[in-house]
Parts: sequence; C-alpha cells; structure tokens
Amino acid sequence: IENQNDVALQELLQEFHYADIAEILDEVDLEQAIYVIKLLDSETTSEILMEVDEDVREKILKQLSAKEIAEEIGELDTDDAADILAELSEERQEQVISQIEDLEHKAEIQELLAYDEDTAGGLMAKELVRVYEDWTVEQCITEIRTQAEDVKRVHSIYVVNNQDQLIGRLSLKDLVTAKSKQKITEIYISNVDSVYVNEDSEDVAKVMAKYDLEAIPVIDHNKILLGRITIDDIVDVIREEADKDYQMAAGISQDVEADDSILKLTKARLPWLLIGMFGGLGAASIIEQFNGSMGDFIVLLSFVPLIQATAGNVGVQSSAIMVQGLANGTIDGNILNQLFKEFLLGLVNGVAIACIALLVTHFVFGTPYIVSITIGIALISVIVMAALIGTFIPIFLDKRGIDPAVATGPFITTSNDVFGILIYFLIAKCILGF
Amino acid sequence: IENQNDVALQELLQEFHYADIAEILDEVDLEQAIYVIKLLDSETTSEILMEVDEDVREKILKQLSAKEIAEEIGELDTDDAADILAELSEERQEQVISQIEDLEHKAEIQELLAYDEDTAGGLMAKELVRVYEDWTVEQCITEIRTQAEDVKRVHSIYVVNNQDQLIGRLSLKDLVTAKSKQKITEIYISNVDSVYVNEDSEDVAKVMAKYDLEAIPVIDHNKILLGRITIDDIVDVIREEADKDYQMAAGISQDVEADDSILKLTKARLPWLLIGMFGGLGAASIIEQFNGSMGDFIVLLSFVPLIQATAGNVGVQSSAIMVQGLANGTIDGNILNQLFKEFLLGLVNGVAIACIALLVTHFVFGTPYIVSITIGIALISVIVMAALIGTFIPIFLDKRGIDPAVATGPFITTSNDVFGILIYFLIAKCILGF
Repeated sequence: IENQNDVALQELLQEFHYADIAEILDEVDLEQAIYVIKLLDSETTSEILMEVDEDVREKILKQLSAKEIAEEIGELDTDDAADILAELSEERQEQVISQIEDLEHKAEIQELLAYDEDTAGGLMAKELVRVYEDWTVEQCITEIRTQAEDVKRVHSIYVVNNQDQLIGRLSLKDLVTAKSKQKITEIYISNVDSVYVNEDSEDVAKVMAKYDLEAIPVIDHNKILLGRITIDDIVDVIREEADKDYQMAAGISQDVEADDSILKLTKARLPWLLIGMFGGLGAASIIEQFNGSMGDFIVLLSFVPLIQATAGNVGVQSSAIMVQGLANGTIDGNILNQLFKEFLLGLVNGVAIACIALLVTHFVFGTPYIVSITIGIALISVIVMAALIGTFIPIFLDKRGIDPAVATGPFITTSNDVFGILIYFLIAKCILGF
Repeated sequence: IENQNDVALQELLQEFHYADIAEILDEVDLEQAIYVIKLLDSETTSEILMEVDEDVREKILKQLSAKEIAEEIGELDTDDAADILAELSEERQEQVISQIEDLEHKAEIQELLAYDEDTAGGLMAKELVRVYEDWTVEQCITEIRTQAEDVKRVHSIYVVNNQDQLIGRLSLKDLVTAKSKQKITEIYISNVDSVYVNEDSEDVAKVMAKYDLEAIPVIDHNKILLGRITIDDIVDVIREEADKDYQMAAGISQDVEADDSILKLTKARLPWLLIGMFGGLGAASIIEQFNGSMGDFIVLLSFVPLIQATAGNVGVQSSAIMVQGLANGTIDGNILNQLFKEFLLGLVNGVAIACIALLVTHFVFGTPYIVSITIGIALISVIVMAALIGTFIPIFLDKRGIDPAVATGPFITTSNDVFGILIYFLIAKCILGF
C-alpha cells in the first residue's frame, strides 16, 4: 500500500479509527510510519501518537521538528499533551512549548508539566466545564455550548463560587430536565467527591472505583478547582499497576513486553536471576556444612528439592495474598492476628503435606521410619516458617512505605529456599543425631 | 452506636455514601448489619447491598424475606439486580422474581439472567436512552427527560431505526448544542462501536480500553439494540481479571482474600502445594537414581538447590511475559520467532549466570574445575530449557482455548524443577563419566 498513491491512502486511512491506525504504525517500519503521520492532518495524527507504543512514539517524535510536534500537541487535551512533552528531553520540551500558538493551552500544559506524573496532578486535564453558582440554567446552557467545544466528553459540570472554589456539581441530565429560569444554586448537588492535586494516582483510582465515578474534580488545598480526571486514565493506571505487580511477582523488574529487545528483557530479568543464584549458592554452602557429618543419612539430600519447592510455593502464596490484601485494603489492622492465622493455616497445610510425604517416602522410597518422620516434621516447620515470612515481609515493607509487591516472587522464594534448607538440616541433626 | 437510638443512627448514616456504609457493614456482625439494613430505606440499602462483600451479602440475603429482596432489587439497575439474583438458589430466585412489582423491570431482569455472566450479555444493563432517527431534537429532549428518570448516568444516546436496529449515537453535548427543529438523522454520528451480546467480557474490556469508551451498546446478530455496558463494570472486570492472573501465578486457585476462613484458604492453596510436593518427590527419585553411581562427585548434590531455583525463576519469568503478552495481544504471531528469541535470551542470561557460578564454586567452594564447568554448562542448559518451556506452555494452552494463566506459578516451577534436575545429572554423567 505504502509507496505510491497519497490520495488513495489518505482516503483509506480516514475510514479507520485512530487506535487502529496506531496499531498499524506499531507494525510498519519507521520511515513508513512517518510518511503516514505527515500525510494525515494533525487532528488525527495527534490521537494516533497518543495510542502508538512508547518506543515507536519516541522514534517518530525524533523525526519531527519542534514546530510539527507543537502542532500535534495543540490538538491534544492538556493531559495528553503534557504526557507527550514529559517524554522529551528538557531542551526539546522548551523548543516545542515555545512553538505552541494558543497561549492559554500553553500555560495550562506548563502547569501540568510541573506535577509529579504519579499524582492526581499528573493525571488531570485542564479541560472541564465550570459554571458559577449565581448563573441561571439558560445562561448555563449558552456557556456550556462555548466551553464544550474544548472538552471532548462532558461528564459533570462543576459548580464553583466566585473564588473559583469547588462547591458542587451539576449533571447534564439535571440541566436538560430543569426549567430554564431556575438558578444554579437551586439545582446543583453540593455533595461532590474530589481529590487533592498531590494525591497518589493509585489512591485516586481507589476512590473512583469505590464510588463508581466516571470523572473526579481535582482541587488544591484552598479548594480551588484545578482540573479533572476521567475514568479512562484511571483504567490505564489500574492496568499498569496490575501489570507491574504481576511482573514483580514473576521477578521482572522493569515494565517489559514480549516484543521488547533481548537487551531490555535481560536487564529486567537478570538481576532477579542473580538473587536466585546467590540464594542457590547459599543453600549449597549450608549443605556442605552438614554433608561431612551426615554419614548414613546421605539419603536426606534427595529430599532437598522437596523441601525447597514447598518452602518457595508456600512463601509465594502467603505473600501474594498479603500484597493483594494490602492493595485492596481488606487486611484488618492487626499484624499479630494475621500472623497467627497464617501460622494455623501453615499448620493445617503442613500436616496434610507431611502425612502424604511420610507415607510416600517410607513405602515408595523405602526410607526408614525415623528418616520419613524427620522429613515430615521438617516439612511442617518449613511450611509454617515460609507462611510467616511470606506474611510478615509484605506488611513490614508496607509499614516502611515500600511497595510490598517487591517482596513476592524470586525475593521471597530465594529467602525461603535458604531458610527452609537450613531448618531441614537442623531438624534432621536434632532427631537423627549426626 | 448500635443498640438504641434509631432516629439518631438513621440521621447519622444518611450523611454517609453507600460505599462507606457497606464498608462498615463488612466489619460489624450479622445481626447489626441486618438491623442497619432494615432501618434504612430500600433506595440506599440496595446500593449498599451491591457494595458489601459477597460473603456478607449472602448472609444478609438469607435473613431477608423474598418480598424484602424483591423491594431491594426493584431499586437497582437491571444489571446489578440480575447479578444479585444470580447468587441465590434457583428456588429462591423464582420466589423473589414473582414478588417484583414492576412488570417491565421483571421481564428485563429475567432476560439478563439468561445470559452467561462472563459475556457482554451478563454485564449489560437494559437502562439506556434510545431515540428514533426520525425524531426532531425537541421531541428528543422531551423523550430523554422521561427516559432519563430510569437511567442513572446518561453516557450516550443511541439512535435506532424503526426496526430497533442500532444505527448510530448522539452525544448529549451535540444535542444540547443543536437547534431544536433539526432532525436526529441530520445530527447523529453513524460511526458507533458496539459488541455482540455473546462476546466474552474480557474482549469487551479490550475494545472499551482500546477506543477509550465510557459506554458501549450491546446488539444481537440482527443489530437489534439490547442494552449497554458502562465503564465502571469494565473496571471491575479488569480488576478481577488481574487479581485472578496474579493469584494463579502465585498458586492460589480460587478467588480468596486475606480475611477469608482458614478452610477456604486451604482449599485454594493446598492443591498447588500437592503439585509441588509430587514434583519434589519426583526430583528425589531422580537423585536416588544417580546417587549410587556418583562416588566422588557427591559434591554435585550441594548444587541441586542452585539448579532448581534458577530453573524455577527463569520459567516463571518467561511464562509471565507470555501470559501478559497474550492477554494484551502484543505477541506477534509466530511461535517459532518467539521461541527463538527466548532461546537467545536464555543463552545470554545463562552464560552470564554460569560464568559467575563457575568462578564462585571454584574459588569459594573449592570444587575442581571440571565440576565447576559441569555446573556452568548445566546452568546454561537448564536456563535455556526453562525459558523454552515457560514460553511454549502458555502459547500451547492459549491455542487450545485454555487460560494460559494456569501455566504460571507452581505449575511451571514444578515441571522446571524436575526437568532441570534431570538435565543437570545427565550432563554431569556425560562430562564426569560416572
């Protein structure tokens, strides 16, 4: 399709949604992508740019002049514009900003750039519909017609007083169904949820999900209405957060995708493998310690993988439940209660696993009773320990203000491996007396 | 607060949002919860019921008569009403349905109950605003005023022809800014995204996230408009899906929370521990096989945990990336390409890990060069193998129509443990010739 016919291509692409064109651009090579971008008008291409992969966008923006980028950005909502600018180098940012023609748009984008991207300020857009409490419904509708030109989707209409402080909201539905001479003061809903501009974006997501909101106004500490956050941005926050936790649990430390380069994937994965490796070497040195004196009980070494796998699995289960519980806020305060519960749970699971293992080792592997019993007792102890470590570490990290998700996956598996093997041999030494 | 003053409590609770009251009810005991439910009017309590924990709701509903439940349900949107009914036994369902007074509401709920809960039909609500293409804007606004009484939030107005087939949409904004004598045909947008009623709910979530939609109409295969799905339901789908995948990866097979009972938690966790246990016993029997003939190379046993931990970690990393890639659709078609890439990645990571392990074992543990080299080669092989298994199994399951998320966590760790240890001893046997 690419090489020749401009007009035909243009017509063809106009039929597509920008999200679909973005998918096509992710696939074709850079030259073709830029060719397409230059062909289409900036209203479409700005939306396409928002949707393409971050890597692709970075490459495309490199090929465009500051003026061209400024044009694209001029078409975007302030929040998207600020997001794109934040990806550029500081020098480039200034060049682009100086080229933006609409002065109001420019000032708003500069304001948004100042906020941390993980806060409400980093998510919000300046585009919103605001009405003053002393207007009439009729006045309001006229004003909304003007303001709505800038706002893609009108969710709520925010009501402010003369100091621009947020005092309530007005749903479009109420407005449509009200009589035209009524005053806003009579029909607005004073009960309005809002978030502060420096609130963490995950907390904003929680509030919006809890109250089923589709947009939420952002205010500063003087209650001045600054902007609004819409649910589609929150959907992205939730997805990213879930992806991040999932990858952490799997031992992947950066946000990577299956189609990233081998170098990038290695950078994300190798550190965790190294942790696991040093854990394995630690376990080896523990085994070495006991090895010499073990004598007849060398058969114990065969069951090291069993101990290790069990410790790892229990640890991951316990920590995953804690991480989710902390994220959703379903953990009822008391740490000791939670640890006691995990202790009981570990005991129940441990006894079940130990009984089966005892029977299998004795009757299938033919190990002496005393060795099988040793393995069983070690399994119970290791499971209880792994459950307690898996529960304690996330709570501990959370109290310290560290994201507990780092505690799942290889981190917990490795520490449980090493502790598990140590406990196993210590118990064996006590019981079998080598 | 509970025991005495009805009026004071009623007044106090009226100040709260229903989501906050639901949180309180999750905490207090059942008797108190039911007392609160009976105290408040059904408009509030129906919303509270939607927000409380599933377990709590089940218990509360058991204490209410069919007539009381029918009243609660009468206040809810059809989608929420159907969700609550779906949780009751069939007999109870019929009793409650027969008590619903509003016949239209009743018919709609019955229709929704017929759809599978994991499809678009299971998510949609019947409440929507529909206008016919031959109406005028003025007629439209009058009609919307009536229809909007049933609809909590008006997202889009759907335009249908006289056969009730969906032909387009009308945004409230366009309607407010249009002239009152214009015909709908002139101002509606014919480009409207929609989903079929039997489409999978995860696919609906993907479509809505991709196109940043806040509501999507649901149609049948004759394009008849059946209902609409709003983004707040999709937020729940995304969250549940992420939670499910996360728990699967951690080896938890049911949807459990930290505050569930020990029995429920054991049911969710024990099966995976059993898989891990049998894997461990499998590994033990492999070690037993080689144990007798190993002679001087008994030191190899010390490094079993190293091999096992590495195999497990690599497997989980690879499978997690595949599971996410498959979920987000970022995997570019070709399985062979993906396997080849993981092969290269495994080689790079493997060589890095093997070199470090070689140096540490030789200089710290003092193992002979030939043993250290054996361990190094085994590590590379095991890492490559684990990466390939971790990549292949999710793709394989996905092609078979099984959720690839089951392939992460204990499942992949256990199989990699066993294969890894087998490969380790086979390589050692070849090189060291015991």
